[in-house]
Amino acid sequence: MKTNHFLYGGDYNPEQWLEEVWEADMKLLLEAHINELTLNVFSWAALQPSEDEYDFSKLDRIMDLVRENGFSVMLATSTAATPPWMARRHPDILRVDPDGKKRKYGARHNFCPSSPTMRKYAPLLARKLAERYKDYDNIIAWHIGNEYGGVCCCDNCQRNFREWLKDKYGTLGNLNRAWNTSFWSHTYYDWDEIVIPDERSENFISEGGSPITQVQGAYLDYRRFHSDIMLEEYRLERDAVKAVTPDIPVTTNFMWFFEDLDYNKWARYMDFVSWDCYPHYDTEPAELAMAHDLIRGVGGQKPFILMEQSPSVTNWQHINPAKRPGEMTMYSLEAVAHGADGVQFFQMRRARGSAESMHGAVIEHSGLGGTRVFNEVKALGERLEGMSDILGATVPAECAIVFDWESWWAVDASQGPTEIMDYKSECINYYRGFYDLHIPVDVIKPDDDLSRYKVVIAPMMFMVQDGFAEKAAAFVQNGGCFVTSYLSGLVDKDYLFYQGGYPGPLKELLGVWVEEQDALPAEKTNHFTWNGKEYEAHIICDLIHPLSDLRALIAENKKVIGDIDYFRDKAYHISDDAGDAEVLGTYTDDFYQGSPVLTENASGKGHSWYVGTSSTPEFYRDLISTVAAENGVKPAVDDAPDGVEVAVRKNDKGTFAFYIDHRNYSVDIRRI
Amino acid sequence: MKTNHFLYGGDYNPEQWLEEVWEADMKLLLEAHINELTLNVFSWAALQPSEDEYDFSKLDRIMDLVRENGFSVMLATSTAATPPWMARRHPDILRVDPDGKKRKYGARHNFCPSSPTMRKYAPLLARKLAERYKDYDNIIAWHIGNEYGGVCCCDNCQRNFREWLKDKYGTLGNLNRAWNTSFWSHTYYDWDEIVIPDERSENFISEGGSPITQVQGAYLDYRRFHSDIMLEEYRLERDAVKAVTPDIPVTTNFMWFFEDLDYNKWARYMDFVSWDCYPHYDTEPAELAMAHDLIRGVGGQKPFILMEQSPSVTNWQHINPAKRPGEMTMYSLEAVAHGADGVQFFQMRRARGSAESMHGAVIEHSGLGGTRVFNEVKALGERLEGMSDILGATVPAECAIVFDWESWWAVDASQGPTEIMDYKSECINYYRGFYDLHIPVDVIKPDDDLSRYKVVIAPMMFMVQDGFAEKAAAFVQNGGCFVTSYLSGLVDKDYLFYQGGYPGPLKELLGVWVEEQDALPAEKTNHFTWNGKEYEAHIICDLIHPLSDLRALIAENKKVIGDIDYFRDKAYHISDDAGDAEVLGTYTDDFYQGSPVLTENASGKGHSWYVGTSSTPEFYRDLISTVAAENGVKPAVDDAPDGVEVAVRKNDKGTFAFYIDHRNYSVDIRRI
Amino acid sequence: MKTNHFLYGGDYNPEQWLEEVWEADMKLLLEAHINELTLNVFSWAALQPSEDEYDFSKLDRIMDLVRENGFSVMLATSTAATPPWMARRHPDILRVDPDGKKRKYGARHNFCPSSPTMRKYAPLLARKLAERYKDYDNIIAWHIGNEYGGVCCCDNCQRNFREWLKDKYGTLGNLNRAWNTSFWSHTYYDWDEIVIPDERSENFISEGGSPITQVQGAYLDYRRFHSDIMLEEYRLERDAVKAVTPDIPVTTNFMWFFEDLDYNKWARYMDFVSWDCYPHYDTEPAELAMAHDLIRGVGGQKPFILMEQSPSVTNWQHINPAKRPGEMTMYSLEAVAHGADGVQFFQMRRARGSAESMHGAVIEHSGLGGTRVFNEVKALGERLEGMSDILGATVPAECAIVFDWESWWAVDASQGPTEIMDYKSECINYYRGFYDLHIPVDVIKPDDDLSRYKVVIAPMMFMVQDGFAEKAAAFVQNGGCFVTSYLSGLVDKDYLFYQGGYPGPLKELLGVWVEEQDALPAEKTNHFTWNGKEYEAHIICDLIHPLSDLRALIAENKKVIGDIDYFRDKAYHISDDAGDAEVLGTYTDDFYQGSPVLTENASGKGHSWYVGTSSTPEFYRDLISTVAAENGVKPAVDDAPDGVEVAVRKNDKGTFAFYIDHRNYSVDIRRI
Repeated sequence: MKTNHFLYGGDYNPEQWLEEVWEADMKLLLEAHINELTLNVFSWAALQPSEDEYDFSKLDRIMDLVRENGFSVMLATSTAATPPWMARRHPDILRVDPDGKKRKYGARHNFCPSSPTMRKYAPLLARKLAERYKDYDNIIAWHIGNEYGGVCCCDNCQRNFREWLKDKYGTLGNLNRAWNTSFWSHTYYDWDEIVIPDERSENFISEGGSPITQVQGAYLDYRRFHSDIMLEEYRLERDAVKAVTPDIPVTTNFMWFFEDLDYNKWARYMDFVSWDCYPHYDTEPAELAMAHDLIRGVGGQKPFILMEQSPSVTNWQHINPAKRPGEMTMYSLEAVAHGADGVQFFQMRRARGSAESMHGAVIEHSGLGGTRVFNEVKALGERLEGMSDILGATVPAECAIVFDWESWWAVDASQGPTEIMDYKSECINYYRGFYDLHIPVDVIKPDDDLSRYKVVIAPMMFMVQDGFAEKAAAFVQNGGCFVTSYLSGLVDKDYLFYQGGYPGPLKELLGVWVEEQDALPAEKTNHFTWNGKEYEAHIICDLIHPLSDLRALIAENKKVIGDIDYFRDKAYHISDDAGDAEVLGTYTDDFYQGSPVLTENASGKGHSWYVGTSSTPEFYRDLISTVAAENGVKPAVDDAPDGVEVAVRKNDKGTFAFYIDHRNYSVDIRRI
Repeated sequence: MKTNHFLYGGDYNPEQWLEEVWEADMKLLLEAHINELTLNVFSWAALQPSEDEYDFSKLDRIMDLVRENGFSVMLATSTAATPPWMARRHPDILRVDPDGKKRKYGARHNFCPSSPTMRKYAPLLARKLAERYKDYDNIIAWHIGNEYGGVCCCDNCQRNFREWLKDKYGTLGNLNRAWNTSFWSHTYYDWDEIVIPDERSENFISEGGSPITQVQGAYLDYRRFHSDIMLEEYRLERDAVKAVTPDIPVTTNFMWFFEDLDYNKWARYMDFVSWDCYPHYDTEPAELAMAHDLIRGVGGQKPFILMEQSPSVTNWQHINPAKRPGEMTMYSLEAVAHGADGVQFFQMRRARGSAESMHGAVIEHSGLGGTRVFNEVKALGERLEGMSDILGATVPAECAIVFDWESWWAVDASQGPTEIMDYKSECINYYRGFYDLHIPVDVIKPDDDLSRYKVVIAPMMFMVQDGFAEKAAAFVQNGGCFVTSYLSGLVDKDYLFYQGGYPGPLKELLGVWVEEQDALPAEKTNHFTWNGKEYEAHIICDLIHPLSDLRALIAENKKVIGDIDYFRDKAYHISDDAGDAEVLGTYTDDFYQGSPVLTENASGKGHSWYVGTSSTPEFYRDLISTVAAENGVKPAVDDAPDGVEVAVRKNDKGTFAFYIDHRNYSVDIRRI
Repeated sequence: MKTNHFLYGGDYNPEQWLEEVWEADMKLLLEAHINELTLNVFSWAALQPSEDEYDFSKLDRIMDLVRENGFSVMLATSTAATPPWMARRHPDILRVDPDGKKRKYGARHNFCPSSPTMRKYAPLLARKLAERYKDYDNIIAWHIGNEYGGVCCCDNCQRNFREWLKDKYGTLGNLNRAWNTSFWSHTYYDWDEIVIPDERSENFISEGGSPITQVQGAYLDYRRFHSDIMLEEYRLERDAVKAVTPDIPVTTNFMWFFEDLDYNKWARYMDFVSWDCYPHYDTEPAELAMAHDLIRGVGGQKPFILMEQSPSVTNWQHINPAKRPGEMTMYSLEAVAHGADGVQFFQMRRARGSAESMHGAVIEHSGLGGTRVFNEVKALGERLEGMSDILGATVPAECAIVFDWESWWAVDASQGPTEIMDYKSECINYYRGFYDLHIPVDVIKPDDDLSRYKVVIAPMMFMVQDGFAEKAAAFVQNGGCFVTSYLSGLVDKDYLFYQGGYPGPLKELLGVWVEEQDALPAEKTNHFTWNGKEYEAHIICDLIHPLSDLRALIAENKKVIGDIDYFRDKAYHISDDAGDAEVLGTYTDDFYQGSPVLTENASGKGHSWYVGTSSTPEFYRDLISTVAAENGVKPAVDDAPDGVEVAVRKNDKGTFAFYIDHRNYSVDIRRI
C-alpha cells in the first residue's frame, strides 16, 4: 500500500455510542493527530438484522462523518463475529470444539469456515459493502475479517478435509503410504473412514500434559487443511470486494508467532500484510523484534502496517500494567524501524461494556483528551508527521533465518525425543545472536530465494521439503554460508523419516552423520568447547560422526546383507565428492565426551555449519559473530552500546538507523 | 429462632442403621449432652419409592424415638439429593454441566432447579412432611434442602433465564443497551437467541487459566438468575411447609464465603440463618472470624445457628488432620462469640460406607462413647449448659465492612486489569485490621442502613449500585467515616463503566480522580509512605489526582470539543462544593513516584478515605487504628494480648467478652 | 513356557515395509543373535479389509520367511487396534470416555470390550489365525491383543455392568446394603437405575485436583467389572486359539504397576506371564526391581518373559534420553535376575511414520547394523547364549510383600484422610528395605499361601477380605512374622468400614486399637523414637492404644448403653487370649507425644508388627533388618557393597547371584 504519510489511527467503533459522542470523538482524534480510522470490524448483527434485511444507515452516517473530518478509512467486512440470529437459524455456522462440543452462540471467532451459511452470507456482506462504499475515495484498504483464528471439528469440516485429501493424494493408496497407516492397523479403504484427528480420535494427552497426535501424517495434513479452509473463507470475502473495487488493497491482521495459520501461504492473497502487536510486560525485546521481522518476511520484505497495539494497557493478559511514559512511543517506532509504514491502535475509545472494556484506548472511560495516555498518542502523531522520508524504505539485510510453519507443526507433532524442544524458541536463539550484534536479518520462507543473502540459518529444520537440500547446496556452492541445527533433516514432506542416516538429504552438504539424539532433562546440562571456550548444551545432544563413518558403515552392511536392491535407494548413496566436516566443537561430558557437536564443512565457495545442541545466548552470539566475520557481514552501525537494539531502513532518500533503548524507552533515529 | 438453651446436636441419620443401633445412639447422645437432632436430610429415595408411593414408617419410628428421648428436632425436607428412580423416569431433573455434559444420576446436588419434576415433587414431599409431623412440638425448625449449590445449564434453565431477562428488561432494546451488545456483533433481535453464557458460549479460558466471560453483562445476569432460580426452588419448599406450619421457623444451611448464591438476598426468605463451618487446618483465624460475622450480617445481625462442623476430622479436604484437644471447643465458642445460639455437628454417627464415611462424628466407626472426640463433645455440652445468659445477645459493633455479592461477581467477571485481584481477600485485609485491634465489626449489605455506624468500609466496590453514592455521602455529612479502595466505582448495576472519570459516582465524596490503574505482577512491589512510615503496594497502584485536576481537564476539553451535549451528562458535572482530598500517602517508586495513594477528604461533619493500592497487614492495622481513633471507636477490651481474638456479645443480662487464643485453643469468657 | 535358550527378539512389523527390506532384516537380525520374532500385533485392517473378506497372503509370506530363517514366533491376534472400516460400519466398537464423549476412530486401545462387533470379529480372527498357522512348529506362544488398557463407559458397558452386579448381588437389597445407598438418597429399586460411576455420575474433582468417587462401593465394583469385562474379551480370543492349538501357551503383555486391571486375576487365564518394561530415566532402581517381582508374583513365582523394552530411547516419555552404554544390557539381565527366561524388544525396526517412529529399535532409521545400539543388542545376544543353565530357575525368597489391587483401588477411592497417601509408594517403601539389605522377596497376592514364608508384610491393607485375618493369625501362630501398617483393616470387601475399632479383624492379632488417624500436611513432620534412634513420621500418624484399652472402653459403654443386641456383633467381642502389643516406638511431638507408633505382638510361635506411620528409607531398612534377624532371614550374599542390587535364582543346576550395579551399568553373575 502506497501512502505519503505514516498511517496513524486504528479501530473506531462509533456504533457503540450516541451520535453526540461522535462529535466529541472527531475533535479529540484530530487533536491527537490521528489520520486513519478502521471501521466496521464487528457490526454484522447491526448491518444485517435478518435473513434478507440490511441496514447501512448508521454506517453511512459514520462514513460521511469521518470523510468530512478528513480521515482515511480501512473498511472491515464485519464478519469476524456472527449475529446471534444467524446462529439460531443456521446452526451450521457454529463451531464444534476438538472434544466434540458443539458451540452455542457467543464470543467472537464463532464461525465454522466450512459452514454453507457463512460462505453464503459473509462474501455477500462484503460485496454489498464494496458496492455501497466504492466511491469513498478515502478508503485506503479493505480489512477482511479480523485476527483469523480458532478451530472447528464439525462434520462439514470433516467432509471438506476428506475432499482436501482426495485433491492432494488422488488415491487412498497414496494416503495410506504417506501416513504409514499399516502402523496400528489404520489402513483406510474408503475416504469416508477418515476423521479429523481431534480429541475424539488420534490425539492423546502425553505425560507432559500436552496433547500429541498419534498419527503425525494425518495431524500435519489436518493443520494444512485447517489453515487452507480458513484461508478459503478469507478469499471468498477478498474476491467479493476485489470484484467491485479491484484497486483497493486488501489485508487482514496477523498475530505475533501464530501457529494455527501458515502466514507464509496466506500472504500470497494479500496486497500488504499487517499485524497486531501486544507484547507482555515481560516479553523479551529480541522476540518482539523478530516478530516484526517475521511479519515483514511473510509479506515479502515489503513495508507492513502495525495494525493494532494498545495505547497503554491490555486487558486480556494475566497482568496488564500501564505502559510507562515513552513505552508506547518506543514500541511504535520499533515497528517503523523494522518496516512498518503505519502505526495503529486498538482502539480509539474504550467500550463501556463487554469483553474489552478494560482495554486501553486513545480516549479512555473518562471520555477526555489531555490524559497522560492521550498526550503521548498526540506527541507521537506529531513526530511521525516529520518522518515521512522513511516511508517505503526496506531493510538491507545480508543474513536470513528460515522460519517454516511446516517444521513448527512437525516439531510440535513429534512424539519424542523430548517435550521441551521448541521450534520457535530455537529460532529466536539464533535471531538473538544477530540482534545482540546489531546485524539486520530477514526472516524468510523455505521457498524464498537464498542467493541474495550471505548467511542463511535454518534452525531445527525437522521437515525438509523436496528440493530444499539442493537449493541450499547450490547456495553454498556459490559462496553462501548455511547453518542448521539438531533435529534437522529428520522427515520428508509426508512426515516419513528419512532412511540412510540423519540429517537425511542435508548430510552431504553438512558432511556429518547424526547417529543418535540424546535428550537431556531440564535439570541436566552437558557442555562443549569451541575455540577454547566452554558452552552449555541443553535439550538435545546429537551424537555426530564425520560423514565417512557412515560411508564405511554402509559398506560393512553390504557385506552382511549383500548388495541387494535395498541399497539402491539414494539414501544409501553418498557421493564420492562429499567430504567430512571439520570438527570445531566437542562435548566435554557423558559417554559421548570428545565427540563432535559443532562442525563446519567447505563445499564449492561456501561453508555449512551444523550445531548439534541448544545452548545459551553467549554461544549464539559467538557463533553469529564468527559466521558474520567469515562472510563479510558487518553490524549496521558500530556505535551502539550493548543492550540497545538497532534496526535499519533504506530507500532512495537515505539510510535510517534506529537506536532503540528498551531500558529507558528512547528511540534515536539517525541518517547513516 | 428463640431458644432458652444453646442448641447442641446436629445431623443424625439412623435410617442407615439397624434399629438396635438407634437404642445405643440414644444413650450415647444423651450422655454427650446433645439436645437437638437434625433428621431426614437425605431420605427422599426411601420416603418416596416411586411416583405415587410414600413410606414414612421408618421416619415415624425415628421421630417418635427422638421425641421420647427428649431431643429437639430440625426436620429436613430431604430434597438435597434426588432418588435414582426419579432420574431415570424424569431426566429433566438431572443437571447439564457448563460444558454441555448431561449428568447421569449420582452424587448429591443433583437436581436442576428448573426441572418441572423437581418443582412438582420436592414441595409435595415438603408438604407431606409438614402435614404428617406438624403436631410434634419438638420440631424447632424446618431445614429446607441442604447446602444449596452447583449449577445447571440445561435448556429448561435457558428458557427460564430468558423469562427472567424479559421480566427484568421488558424490551430487547434495554437488554442490548445494558449488555452493550453492539460490541462483537451481539445484537439480539429475539429473546430466543439468548443462550446461557457457559463454556459453550461466552466463556473462554484466560491466560491465567481461569474461565472468564466475554460479555460481563450477560454473565452477571446469569449469576443473578442462577442465584434466583435456586432460591425459587428453596422458596417452593419453604412455602409448602409454611402453609401447614406457619409458626415453625425455616432455614437452610449456608456455607462460608460462597460465591454462587447471593446470601444477602436469600436471607430475606429465612426466619433465621445458619451455616456450616469447616475451616482447613491452615485457615487464617481472621478469615474464619469474618465468615461468622458475614453470616450474622446476612441474617441482619441477629443470632444465628452454627448448623454443621466436624467434631474432629473432615474427609473431603486435601489433608484432614485430627482436631487437636480443645480445638473443636474453641471453634464452637468462637461461633457463639460471633453470635451463634446453637452449636451443631455433622454428624452424630459415622456412616459405614459412601462418600463421607471418613468424616468425623460424635460416635465414630468404633461405635463407642468415651473416645477422645466423644469426651470433648460431652464436655462442651456441659459447658454450654452454663452459658444460657448469653442467648439472644447481639454484637455491639460501631464499624462495618460492606460485602456485596454483586461486586464480588463483577470483579471475578472482569477481564483486566489483573488476574490476581481478589475481592474476598481485600475485604479480609480490612477485617483483619479490626480483628488485630480487638474492635468488633459488622459485615453489612450495601443496602443496609449506614447511620448506626461510625466507620463504614467498602473495599473494592467495583460495582456501585444506584443510590449508594448518595447514601454514603449523607452518612459522611452526618459525621460518619467512609473508606473505600482501588477498583471501586468502576461500573454501574449493568456492568457499564462510569464515564467522566473514576471512581464514578464516588469521586466528589472522595475528592479524587483516578486516571489509571497500574497492575503489578506478583513478583513486583511498589511502596508508599504515610506518616513517615513506608508500606508495600501490591496488585494495583491507582494513579490518583486531586479532584480539581479533573475539573480543569473537563474545562480544557470543552475548549477543544466545544460545550456540546456530550458534557450535559452528569458525569461531567463536578459540584463547586466538591473539594480536593488531602494527600496522606504517596508512592515512592516508578514513574508515579510522589503521586497520591492514600487520601482523606472532609465533607460535612465527616471524612472519606481512599486507598489506592493493596498492602500488608501492618498497613491495614495502622489504617484502622487511625480511623478508629479519629472517630472515637475503641477496642472491645483493653487487656487482650496480641494474637488473641476478642469478640463481644451484649444483651440485657450483660456484656460478654470472649478471649479466644488460637495458639492453645483456649476460650475465656468474661462479663465486662 | 519351556525353552532351552533365552528367548531373544521382539516385535517385528515387516508389513510396514517393502519386501526388499525384509531380506535385509533377516540378515541383520541373525547377525544380532535374535532368535524370536513377535509378529502380527497390529495388522487387523490389513488382514480383514471388510466384513467378509480376509487376506493372509502377506502374513503367509512373512511366516514362511521367518521360519526359513530359523526364528521362533510369538503370533499375535492383531486385535489391539481395530480397522477404520469397522468403526465406521459398527460404531458400537468405539469407546465412550468417562465424560460421555463418544470416540471417533483413531489411535489404539480403541475397542469397547462390550461391543458385540468386537466380541464377534476379534475371536473370529484369532480362530482363523490359529487354523491357518497351527502347523508352524516355530510358534512358541500366542500373544493375545496387546497391553490391554483404557476404559469405556458406553451404554453396552453399562448394561453389562448391571448384569455383572446382578450376578454378584442377586438382589437389589444386597446391593443397597453393600453400597450403603441410604446415604445421599441413593436407594435403587430397579437394576436399570444403576449407571456407571463416571464423570457424569458419582465422580467429582476433589480439592487436590484428582477425581474421587462419591460412592466407594459402586466405584470399586465398577473397577472390578471393568477389569473383568476386559478379561472377558481377552478370554474370548484365548479360547478361540486354544480350541485349535491347545498345546501352544498363551499370554498377553502386562505393564509395570498397572492399576486398571487386576493382574492377579488375569494371570489365572494365562499360561505364562510377560510384561513390558519401560523405566524412565529417573525411575528408582528399587521400584523397577519390585515391578519385576510383582509380575513374577502375579504369575505364581514362575519364570516370566520380558516381552518389551527399548534397545535405547523411548519416544512417549516426557524426556527420552539415549540409554547409556551397558544400560540396556543391565536392564535385560536385571529382568533375568528376577525371573525372566526371555528378553525382548520393541522393536526390530523403527517405523518411518506414525506414533512410535521415534521409538528405539534394533535397526534404527538409518536401516543399518553396526550402530552403537545394534552392537550392544548383538553382544547381549551372545552373552545370553552362554547363560542357559539359569533357565527355569526360581527365586528362593523367605519373605513376601502382599500387593492387592483391591486395596490399591480402595485407597485411591477413599475420600480422606489425606490425598497424599499412596498405596503403591508405601509398598515400595517396604520393598526398598529388603532391596537395600540384599534380601530376596516375593510379591504375593492376598490369597496366596503364607506358610512358605518367614516374614509377610501387608502394607496399607485398607481392605481386608474375608478370611485373611484368620489366615494371618494362623501364619503367626505357626511362627511367622506378620507386619502391617497405618490405614490397614479399615473396610471389608464391600467397602463398609469395620465397626468396633480399627484395624478391624486384625486388631486381636496385632494387639492394638487405632482410635484415630492424624493426617499430616506435606510440609509437616512428626517424629518417633525406636531403639534410641529418632525417625521421621509422615502422611498419617495413627493414634494407637494397647488392645486392653479398647476392651475396657467396651465395658464402660455397656454400662452406659446396657448390654443390648448392639454388643452381640463380633466386632465388640475381644477374645480373652488377646494380649496387648509391646510398644517399641513412640511419637516425640504433638498432642500424642509418647503414644505408640510401632508395636510388636507375640502370639503362638510368632509375632505381629504394626507400623502406625510412614517414614524414611532408613526406618524401613532398620525395620526389615530387625525383623529379618529375629526370624532367621539372611541376605542372599554377604559381599555386595551398598548400592548394588542383588537378586538370586536357583534351580537344579545351581544358585545364581546377580550383582547389579546401577551406577556403572555392570552385572556380575556368580554361582553361589
